[in-house]
Amino acid sequence: MKRVYNFSAGPAILPEEVLKEAQQEMLDYQDSGMSVMEMSHRSAIYQKIIDDAEKDLRTLMNIPDNYKVLFLQGGATTQFSMIPMNLMKHGVADYIITGAWAKKAYQEAKKYGDARQIASSEDKMFSYIPDVSNLDISKDADYVYMVDNNTIYGTKYENIPNTKGKILINDASSCILSEPIDVTKYGVIFAGAQKNIGPAGTVIVIIREDLIRKDIKADTPIMLRYDTHAENGSMYNTPPTYGIYICGKVFKWLLNLGGLDAIYQINKHKANLLYDYLDHSKLFYGTVEKKSRSLMNVCFKTDSEALNTLFIKEAKALGFDNLKGHRSVGGMRASIYNAMPTEGVQALVDFMKDFEEKHL
Amino acid sequence: MKRVYNFSAGPAILPEEVLKEAQQEMLDYQDSGMSVMEMSHRSAIYQKIIDDAEKDLRTLMNIPDNYKVLFLQGGATTQFSMIPMNLMKHGVADYIITGAWAKKAYQEAKKYGDARQIASSEDKMFSYIPDVSNLDISKDADYVYMVDNNTIYGTKYENIPNTKGKILINDASSCILSEPIDVTKYGVIFAGAQKNIGPAGTVIVIIREDLIRKDIKADTPIMLRYDTHAENGSMYNTPPTYGIYICGKVFKWLLNLGGLDAIYQINKHKANLLYDYLDHSKLFYGTVEKKSRSLMNVCFKTDSEALNTLFIKEAKALGFDNLKGHRSVGGMRASIYNAMPTEGVQALVDFMKDFEEKHL
Repeated sequence: MKRVYNFSAGPAILPEEVLKEAQQEMLDYQDSGMSVMEMSHRSAIYQKIIDDAEKDLRTLMNIPDNYKVLFLQGGATTQFSMIPMNLMKHGVADYIITGAWAKKAYQEAKKYGDARQIASSEDKMFSYIPDVSNLDISKDADYVYMVDNNTIYGTKYENIPNTKGKILINDASSCILSEPIDVTKYGVIFAGAQKNIGPAGTVIVIIREDLIRKDIKADTPIMLRYDTHAENGSMYNTPPTYGIYICGKVFKWLLNLGGLDAIYQINKHKANLLYDYLDHSKLFYGTVEKKSRSLMNVCFKTDSEALNTLFIKEAKALGFDNLKGHRSVGGMRASIYNAMPTEGVQALVDFMKDFEEKHL
Repeated sequence: MKRVYNFSAGPAILPEEVLKEAQQEMLDYQDSGMSVMEMSHRSAIYQKIIDDAEKDLRTLMNIPDNYKVLFLQGGATTQFSMIPMNLMKHGVADYIITGAWAKKAYQEAKKYGDARQIASSEDKMFSYIPDVSNLDISKDADYVYMVDNNTIYGTKYENIPNTKGKILINDASSCILSEPIDVTKYGVIFAGAQKNIGPAGTVIVIIREDLIRKDIKADTPIMLRYDTHAENGSMYNTPPTYGIYICGKVFKWLLNLGGLDAIYQINKHKANLLYDYLDHSKLFYGTVEKKSRSLMNVCFKTDSEALNTLFIKEAKALGFDNLKGHRSVGGMRASIYNAMPTEGVQALVDFMKDFEEKHL
């Protein structure tokens, strides 16, 4: 068995230790005589799995007691609807448009009220994060919406937006758990699991309790109400049990590494290996403004389409997989989530240097 | 490692062969150098996994070309909303109430239109399927809604309802793939995967193409529109990739067994082992009307609460797990889905005989 270095933007690489444990437990979890996939979600043994996952996530992110942690389904895209359906109390919300996902969330919110675009970086193909220090926040806005790390373009907020007292909603799908975050600054943080946490099919929602309302529109689908899930410990119906189990293993892996402070140091080191090289390369260059650089998704190019294509092809043959950039940006993208080992990034940089020598 | 006989109602037992294959492929699927969990859903290798799953399901159920097969999230409960939101064109629908899940679907539908209860077996704690040969179908009903197999009570329709030409919607969560079904008789068949197919977190929707409407209410959440998923091959956003992969393995396992005709014979044999014994036992008895008996969920009792409790306890100690009946019915329930081997049912019957001898 030879594992590749998988630079996929998501679903994405998982820690090998986690996969090995899951492999070992596949037919018999802790002498239960069954796979976690086969367990009733109402059993004591499964309850401990989800309880431990929540506890470990709370420890990792230092989540205060007045926030609920929900394990839901439907991906971040379902949150694009749930956020306005549950939180647009006065019918107004402000959106910061930093990429395709922010735009989709904004378009969905317009179905439910007056969603307003208060900043955008679309003028330069989302290659930077707009200045968010003095935004034109709507007086009656129920919330301000941001996407912290923009997977497609490789940008990340350097500073948290000044919302002038309004509730801040953060789609943190592609940077959750990559660095410490002050949860108290946000009303809701949500993230699809499939980038930095676990398998696709689980979305994690961290929501301040006072934002979970009951007085929302009566025709809101039962599964799209936060109160449904909050009141039932994420078990109003059968949750994605196996996915949550894998997420839990990833949380434990992170705790063993030393938590978010430790992984942040590693992530900065990994990203710097790439960015430092890109800043000195005469062939490759990074595609985003330096102050907006993501630690998770590093986008780069050469000026030759032919060389970009050749690079991706040769890299794949050497075991560096999924380096092709998103079609809207082109070039290359190396997604270097928590589970990507430093060796993988170093090996990629070494290969880029070789490639540059040959083709410059 | 000792595997138990797992009689859980869901999430439930999976074929051991499937789990072993998944175990073997956990870190490296077919020399890709990665786990299926780590694969981009946009990659060619994953596309083949979902395409094969769909193809094999179409073969198993003989699904005509004018039906779409969708792999969605949110469980059957999300379908309780999606069905009326997408199909209640004229605002009227008829519901046959055969248990708690049918009732929940009916209550949810009332949010979106005039949902009418046209038959119910609640008078006798849902221990039978009502006569559905001449129902009082609403003239303007957009559809008639049924739950084919009622997991909690252990009932199953003997005959398909006479809908007098109206579209029939079938929640087949706990009997899908247990016997042949004539798909053309239904407008929609849906099923949560976690009973007879695969892990929790995937719901399969088989829907006649002409029922996928675009002219539904504009504020329907994007993820709750069938057209969203139908137009994007179940990949509008990231699907539950690993769950679909396991479902695909179960489909292949069934095809290798000989398809639904073959498993139906096995299922009848397994259920008859239990029902025949129950019909002759002087201690245990089945709790539902004979003509409404489920092949998948066999509910039974003794007249002593103490003996029921003792039976469940002793059974568990011997490796027969999850035999406790649903709290609303009490007693015992043996869920004997496709993956439960005949030996498991025979062993259970043998233990019941021993228990009866000791305690009668």
